[in-house]
Amino acid sequence: MHRLTVQYFSPADPAAFDERYESVHVPLVRALPGIESFTLARPRPLRGDAPYLVAELWFEDADALQTALGSPEMAAAGKDAATYEVASVVMFSGEVREML
Amino acid sequence: MHRLTVQYFSPADPAAFDERYESVHVPLVRALPGIESFTLARPRPLRGDAPYLVAELWFEDADALQTALGSPEMAAAGKDAATYEVASVVMFSGEVREML
Repeated sequence: MHRLTVQYFSPADPAAFDERYESVHVPLVRALPGIESFTLARPRPLRGDAPYLVAELWFEDADALQTALGSPEMAAAGKDAATYEVASVVMFSGEVREML
Repeated sequence: MHRLTVQYFSPADPAAFDERYESVHVPLVRALPGIESFTLARPRPLRGDAPYLVAELWFEDADALQTALGSPEMAAAGKDAATYEVASVVMFSGEVREML
């Protein structure tokens, strides 16, 4: 499985961010072609500059992720994401290896 | 399930970091009390300052994570982690919510 991680840092207005992310962005992510799992976490910071929200999108493999990244649905999700007032957004992708 | 995420950024010497992390740190993490799953990812950066290595440690619940955080095994893992030459380490924890 191949994972795309999107981390949102320090929203200007957390309550407004949450409301619009859940009502507008979540449906756009759910509509991505080939998406097999989608999780959200609002973690507690323990050390360093922790993200406010972590979105994780799972695909069958790197090809399925590439297809999703190039899709009109991803363009729509990206266009929406660009309207959120956050300090920064970090994105990365790759395989996740079981160690236990 | 409750997840502890540890992100390592920009190791001074990636090959040396990998070698010692896998041979020394991985066994220390596997020995943590209550750990139920442990994954590693070396993601491809797509946007912003992406981590070099992402370690994810899963526990039954917040109490199990707290117990692990206060354990001598975690003290040993933390002591080892402090010796790695990286630009920064970010840690956060919390529930992961299924959205799909």
